[in-house]
Amino acid sequence: MRKNFSLERRSFFVKSSKLAAGSLLFSGTFSNLSAKESLTVPTWSKSLGRPTGENLYGLPSPFEEDVIKEIRLINAPKGYVSNSIALTSANSPISKIRGNSTPNGLFFERNHSGVPVIDPSEHKLLIHGLVKNNIVLSMDKIKRFPSIEKSYFVECSGNTGISKKSPPEKRLDDMYGLMSCATWIGVKLSVLLEEAGIDLEKAKYIIAEGADGATMARSIPISRVMDDCMVAYMQNGEAIRPEQGYPLKLIVPGCEGNINIKWLRRLEVTDTPLFARDEVSKYSDLLANGKARQATLVMDVKSVITFPTTGDTLPEKGFYEIRGLAWSGRGKISKVDVSLDGGHNWTTAELGSDALSKAFVSFTFTWNWDGKPAVLLSRAMDEKGEVQPFFKQITKARGFHSESHNNAIQAWAVSTNGEVHNVRV
Amino acid sequence: MRKNFSLERRSFFVKSSKLAAGSLLFSGTFSNLSAKESLTVPTWSKSLGRPTGENLYGLPSPFEEDVIKEIRLINAPKGYVSNSIALTSANSPISKIRGNSTPNGLFFERNHSGVPVIDPSEHKLLIHGLVKNNIVLSMDKIKRFPSIEKSYFVECSGNTGISKKSPPEKRLDDMYGLMSCATWIGVKLSVLLEEAGIDLEKAKYIIAEGADGATMARSIPISRVMDDCMVAYMQNGEAIRPEQGYPLKLIVPGCEGNINIKWLRRLEVTDTPLFARDEVSKYSDLLANGKARQATLVMDVKSVITFPTTGDTLPEKGFYEIRGLAWSGRGKISKVDVSLDGGHNWTTAELGSDALSKAFVSFTFTWNWDGKPAVLLSRAMDEKGEVQPFFKQITKARGFHSESHNNAIQAWAVSTNGEVHNVRV
Repeated sequence: MRKNFSLERRSFFVKSSKLAAGSLLFSGTFSNLSAKESLTVPTWSKSLGRPTGENLYGLPSPFEEDVIKEIRLINAPKGYVSNSIALTSANSPISKIRGNSTPNGLFFERNHSGVPVIDPSEHKLLIHGLVKNNIVLSMDKIKRFPSIEKSYFVECSGNTGISKKSPPEKRLDDMYGLMSCATWIGVKLSVLLEEAGIDLEKAKYIIAEGADGATMARSIPISRVMDDCMVAYMQNGEAIRPEQGYPLKLIVPGCEGNINIKWLRRLEVTDTPLFARDEVSKYSDLLANGKARQATLVMDVKSVITFPTTGDTLPEKGFYEIRGLAWSGRGKISKVDVSLDGGHNWTTAELGSDALSKAFVSFTFTWNWDGKPAVLLSRAMDEKGEVQPFFKQITKARGFHSESHNNAIQAWAVSTNGEVHNVRV
Repeated sequence: MRKNFSLERRSFFVKSSKLAAGSLLFSGTFSNLSAKESLTVPTWSKSLGRPTGENLYGLPSPFEEDVIKEIRLINAPKGYVSNSIALTSANSPISKIRGNSTPNGLFFERNHSGVPVIDPSEHKLLIHGLVKNNIVLSMDKIKRFPSIEKSYFVECSGNTGISKKSPPEKRLDDMYGLMSCATWIGVKLSVLLEEAGIDLEKAKYIIAEGADGATMARSIPISRVMDDCMVAYMQNGEAIRPEQGYPLKLIVPGCEGNINIKWLRRLEVTDTPLFARDEVSKYSDLLANGKARQATLVMDVKSVITFPTTGDTLPEKGFYEIRGLAWSGRGKISKVDVSLDGGHNWTTAELGSDALSKAFVSFTFTWNWDGKPAVLLSRAMDEKGEVQPFFKQITKARGFHSESHNNAIQAWAVSTNGEVHNVRV
């Protein structure tokens, strides 16, 4: 190190969402760190580190021990057998992670009878019903079929929820933690059904059933089944996790989490839906007039700002990168707009990567905060032309009886002291 | 379940690398599983599973306990202080994982002084040298800069190695385990250097230094630095792992692993390379004539079949999906060809996703094995027109003195009994 430090105050100049070449972002913000401090050689530079391969399956740094899933207690409906083990779910800490893929260790959980630990050598998939030949497939055999590799989000239909009140202390992870995204490797469902000789003249639905104690089962329209559904055995490069359906999970891209049957053991081709418990007593949406929407499978276009949100405090005026996620069950995200003034003016954000169909895409927006109150919103659009609605548009159409399928625009208010809180617009 | 099983023998029909619609892949291969077996309800379908969120940072299934990194002992050169802790590396088990992204827990390790465990609140990055203002950045400040999200592979220059003999028992993971790929989130290095006011008239190199006990340091040409280099603080959606440089890693896309400085603490802008220990005594490639190639940074276009490989046994004639990975330090993979006869005939494989620049892309190739001996090869081409060479082309040009930068075509021989072994072509 040849020079002394001269940490002069600098002016900065940030233009809309683009940084002008040669502009400085931070004015005098380095003065809290002296040259002497930076030259100090820390302990870890003077000693031998932890042995290589100490953890043959590696784990995060001990300094990241607060980046974990959050147990979410669900109030069991009256008359429903309450069991704190079976009825909980675990939220993904999305305020602490980033980007278009959720780490496997932090993927959200929603289980109806806990997590079965299945021996893959004993697990089988039965395909029967309106097929020429019933077939039973071992995991080894499933892995021999031609495979595909696709990124898809999974979102619980109850993610975000619909409630009359949305208090300022409501946190991102509590509201949005029932969603995650991964790259899945597996077999196209149409390939397996063709192997069994599906009768496409008569087939109208497929009934998918899990091997958990709840025997979770759902009906899926055949048009969707033969399009992009897959049975997945790998998640982000390694075997699918127990909480996600090890050894086999059905992926119904873009559709509500519950229909992505975990621990998949049976596929029955039928000419009628099953009207299973979990598509009648639950996972149908009661409207204001007492009627219910059924088979509301698709998760609509949605986005959320993940920084800054409730609990964050901006330490000073100046440059911040607003960050968020966008996704749509109908295809690719085409655009995300951001508003800094509660929805009066909108500017297009930058996407972090090419948007993939029915997968998360991250977005960023360069913001030079002037220290005045601000209300930050994001609004996603998808390739089908669908636009994310305001909350009042959703509840005007559907009322407050059902908690499901809320894809409303989320707002975060920034106060002059830099504190950020949930608000409804 | 309404029907009895009728597991008839079926004919199959597989056309080149595409599956004909309605063709059956497996002839009579289901008969080992009876209807009765498939109808048995296993224990895990009759009981409550493991509690939801039992592991708030989730882990793989206990049935995947053999999917771990492999410690690799390195023979220390004569005169070099041998230390089994400092000199080992850990290979990624690439035969057991799949797709274009390596799970963080299984990312390969190569450390020169073990793994320092760094407190991120005390870690700082110093930028100095040919800049207008020396700056010192805390992790909090680095995270406030505009961020990018990019997938890049990291491959040790010694991956695969160059040796006169390549015995049949050589395994994929042992030969190819010093490489991995991840999605990184961080800040473009050019943004930080512009913040410091880099003198682009005089600047020719940047010297990057790590905070480990080895003080790993390397020189990087300024053209590359201002192009796509980044300082990364997130890996596959979560904080970068300790073994990969927590809290901060330099990414020099497409260049040999060693130059992607981990635990990054210092960047010095200079007009000359450092000629550091790890670019002179190591990481330069001795040629047959006694001269050495220096600064051989770029990892050339390469591919490898990851299934089937040494140790696999094909249980029967019939359908298999040949699977592999391809990558290039010069840009995107444009094509991967596969040969089944040792290189006489080649057919183009399918890529698992759109190829990204300087990142892994998976490929697959549908193969109907007739039970005769076969020699399986893959050959990658990149967007710059570079073609993966044969081993003899590499050693003819460079000899056997250096182990580094072997991007040769790899061959796997399949015997009539289905056994697979390493061979050199």
